[in-house]
Amino acid sequence: MNTEGVFSRQQNGVVQPLLTDLYQITMAYAYWKTGKVTDHSIFDLFFRKNPFQGEFTIFAGLEECLKFLQAFHFSQSDIEYLKQTMSSVEDEFFEFLSNLSTNDVVIYALDEGTVVFPRIPLIRVEGPLIITQLLETTLLTLVNYASLMATNAARYRIAAGNSKLLEFGLRRAQGPDGGLSASKYSYIGGFDGTSNVLAGKLYDIPVKGTHAHAYVTSFTSFSELLMLTIKWRSELVPLFKVVITEVNDGELAAFISFAMAFPDQFMVLVDTYDVERYPCHVTYNTFTPRQKCLPNTPTHSKYRSGLLNFCAVSLALNDLAFQAVGIRIDSGDIAYLSFVAREYFIKISAKYEIPCLNEQEHKINCFGIGTHLVTCQKQPSLGCVYKLVELNHQPRMKLSQDVAKVSLPGRKDAYRLFSEREDALIDLLIRPDEEQPSVGTKILCRHPFEESRRAYVTPSKVEKLHKLYWKDGRVCRTLPSLEDIRNNVSTSLKSIRSDIKRNHNPTPYKVAVSDNLYNFLHNLWMENAPIGELT
Amino acid sequence: MNTEGVFSRQQNGVVQPLLTDLYQITMAYAYWKTGKVTDHSIFDLFFRKNPFQGEFTIFAGLEECLKFLQAFHFSQSDIEYLKQTMSSVEDEFFEFLSNLSTNDVVIYALDEGTVVFPRIPLIRVEGPLIITQLLETTLLTLVNYASLMATNAARYRIAAGNSKLLEFGLRRAQGPDGGLSASKYSYIGGFDGTSNVLAGKLYDIPVKGTHAHAYVTSFTSFSELLMLTIKWRSELVPLFKVVITEVNDGELAAFISFAMAFPDQFMVLVDTYDVERYPCHVTYNTFTPRQKCLPNTPTHSKYRSGLLNFCAVSLALNDLAFQAVGIRIDSGDIAYLSFVAREYFIKISAKYEIPCLNEQEHKINCFGIGTHLVTCQKQPSLGCVYKLVELNHQPRMKLSQDVAKVSLPGRKDAYRLFSEREDALIDLLIRPDEEQPSVGTKILCRHPFEESRRAYVTPSKVEKLHKLYWKDGRVCRTLPSLEDIRNNVSTSLKSIRSDIKRNHNPTPYKVAVSDNLYNFLHNLWMENAPIGELT
Repeated sequence: MNTEGVFSRQQNGVVQPLLTDLYQITMAYAYWKTGKVTDHSIFDLFFRKNPFQGEFTIFAGLEECLKFLQAFHFSQSDIEYLKQTMSSVEDEFFEFLSNLSTNDVVIYALDEGTVVFPRIPLIRVEGPLIITQLLETTLLTLVNYASLMATNAARYRIAAGNSKLLEFGLRRAQGPDGGLSASKYSYIGGFDGTSNVLAGKLYDIPVKGTHAHAYVTSFTSFSELLMLTIKWRSELVPLFKVVITEVNDGELAAFISFAMAFPDQFMVLVDTYDVERYPCHVTYNTFTPRQKCLPNTPTHSKYRSGLLNFCAVSLALNDLAFQAVGIRIDSGDIAYLSFVAREYFIKISAKYEIPCLNEQEHKINCFGIGTHLVTCQKQPSLGCVYKLVELNHQPRMKLSQDVAKVSLPGRKDAYRLFSEREDALIDLLIRPDEEQPSVGTKILCRHPFEESRRAYVTPSKVEKLHKLYWKDGRVCRTLPSLEDIRNNVSTSLKSIRSDIKRNHNPTPYKVAVSDNLYNFLHNLWMENAPIGELT
Repeated sequence: MNTEGVFSRQQNGVVQPLLTDLYQITMAYAYWKTGKVTDHSIFDLFFRKNPFQGEFTIFAGLEECLKFLQAFHFSQSDIEYLKQTMSSVEDEFFEFLSNLSTNDVVIYALDEGTVVFPRIPLIRVEGPLIITQLLETTLLTLVNYASLMATNAARYRIAAGNSKLLEFGLRRAQGPDGGLSASKYSYIGGFDGTSNVLAGKLYDIPVKGTHAHAYVTSFTSFSELLMLTIKWRSELVPLFKVVITEVNDGELAAFISFAMAFPDQFMVLVDTYDVERYPCHVTYNTFTPRQKCLPNTPTHSKYRSGLLNFCAVSLALNDLAFQAVGIRIDSGDIAYLSFVAREYFIKISAKYEIPCLNEQEHKINCFGIGTHLVTCQKQPSLGCVYKLVELNHQPRMKLSQDVAKVSLPGRKDAYRLFSEREDALIDLLIRPDEEQPSVGTKILCRHPFEESRRAYVTPSKVEKLHKLYWKDGRVCRTLPSLEDIRNNVSTSLKSIRSDIKRNHNPTPYKVAVSDNLYNFLHNLWMENAPIGELT
């Protein structure tokens, strides 16, 4: 096994050019071999269907793409590996490869964090055919998962209202780097933080459990806290209607340890131990759960050990002038159980005339999301594609039986048109030689394939979506911070009507072409589509 | 944004200790604060359910875990980050952390690539509580996805018989590193190669399109190939029953370019252009596919352009003493279409009295798998857990309402017992002080929870599953190569009965405990489970 390293990124965190399909390099060779070195191409990177059965997508991954372009270079060791792998290739090609750079590539892209829709080119790559072809797989890899994750996170954000959202998925992520990307792009999509410490360090994302800036020195007495807790526990037993043998002592010890280490951040899991149903377990002759085998056992009694212990420690902390933060529930009917917990907290604060355990409303105010978030269980990949739309200034299109797969030929510019209320109305693609849409001027927007579907739009605001990001071998815009991108997601989402963003039965957003582009597309189509023959 | 680097692995490709949940570090602090520095613990890493509704799993990721242990060290920059994040923590703890090593950790594990089953500890981690706790998230991250991917690949391997399997998923992988891991662990699981060039370079895995070692120098004439191809195409038109206008010239040009670059490796996509159904497209007023709108158009006619062009180039290559490799089909009913292609090949080789285009049988002999493989769409995560089973030589167990979630307490050794035909019969967990099972000796194997389910087994072969892999701060076994691990998967799978491995309705494999362990477990359970009260 190669000992040089087992990672996809170089020392500076940038993805290597060999992270591509061999196919791309053999194609590059075929282009080179047949004299296509100076051919000029335009590729569109876009997707055809929003993920998660939704009607919007968040575009992410652009910064990583630009850094990849910046560092693009086949090292001597890469070239040697390729030589040994592609043995029938001429040496001059490898010389050509080792001198290849992205200096002649031009990239137009949407701002990272923008809400995007099917068919709009997220990135337009212009330049010599060989180098643009070589970028395909890596750009797709960098955009697909980043956008999928940011979109997934944004959907959770919309569903969760004002609750805090934390990403907890590292242990279930698809590889260590998958875990890091999940933390980064879920933050962009609207999460409030992550449990992943390295992500916190690398991207300056809040990590779960960050403490208040009160350095605790006064609190060193274990025995004091212990005594107070034991006292409070005896007090509380009747209130919780439990038998003391049902309350787990190991759990109490763990809670006290935690409270001693973090007296101002006391928050614990209350569902480690079950107290319910053990009388049924003595026979062990089945795996079938037997919920409610004791007719009068309330269903929430399994949490009474944890809740009681939590309250005892919290009251002891209160005596020592610290305030507990809350509880964590990892299993069962969380909504119902948070309500049960709330009832106990209210009862206790009333009975002992102490301030409520938490000044905020007692309800779920933080969700930690793991597997479903980081693996995007509902749809684990986004189908971005990278299609040649122009070669040597001639438009190119992929013809397909499936109309949805026909690609839009030629260089296109995209505009978002807004209503008076600043709602996004429609995205419009036009040909580069057309006049750009302007505020107050009526413009005809057409469905790209259905002749009869068209509408006039008079925009109150017009946004040019494509911006020049890369030229002459360098990034030519100031790149936004992660925080800026996150804000762009939130701003961009605000301009989208809520029926488009909703989970259930969302309305599709309209993506249209100008009349000019419509005619251009359909003429080209008719010219190129072969005519069948009835036999 | 931090500019230090944006990657989860250090320069040597090893995962960093900060790639963990903050929770682990706060727990470590709580342990430290309450004097648990010398507490001795044993953790089991295991899963409870096989993935993909199957009945087996391939254990993978061990080498990466061991390398992580080897490099485990909180750097000065890590410590500074933690200090600033955990502001209420005493300075002495950070000193403790920065001196922390894995020297006192002992790791027993199964060989990487072994077929494994629920509840068998894949890795047993022994050592001081604080360090063993700190390893949890990272070990889970490294084992979960690696094992999931290797298992997914092994399932494809079983289904595909002798066909070649290539991993093509990079562009849809969950991040760049997810793509690399997918290539590596699908190779372990039985794939024959990958399209991912970097994976090829780093792990010495065959990359798709690797060429025969015949350096081609003689072949430089484009015009010769072109002329021959044109001649053959006219010949073939009647045989394919197409009108020449239906055959795409751009496609032909692309094929010829490719053939010129790789005359001994000619294999192309034949489904880029459709020839069918265009007569129906003129109205453009619907998205509904209208297959069969022309009554006599054979459904495979859409591939006739590609097939005809492929055959023309192949015959021209044949004139020049090169043999074409085959075609690639990416869409539609691949099984049916490969049959259609075969028919044309046979017809042509008969008519022109040339050897068949490919000496092998004309059928699908290679599958390239992308999204479904790398994202494990059917189940995108494996649920490995990491549970404390012994603390200071006292057994620990998690009690749960859900019997399936009860963990098996104490240190346990695992054995695999085989039949005379060398079929694996059962995996048996025993207590460390028990005599180990031996060939020819009858032993009672019990279901861990169901009292009445038990069986005597007289093994013809006994395999001790746990081996010592880490002690005194270093790896203490020679680590196998990737190829060795891949062979272990194949050997290990051969010993598993095929009804256990099948896709549909597989038989569960039995995992049992010794009578001694059964009694130990149930006594402990009864001692610890609280007794309810009827009210």
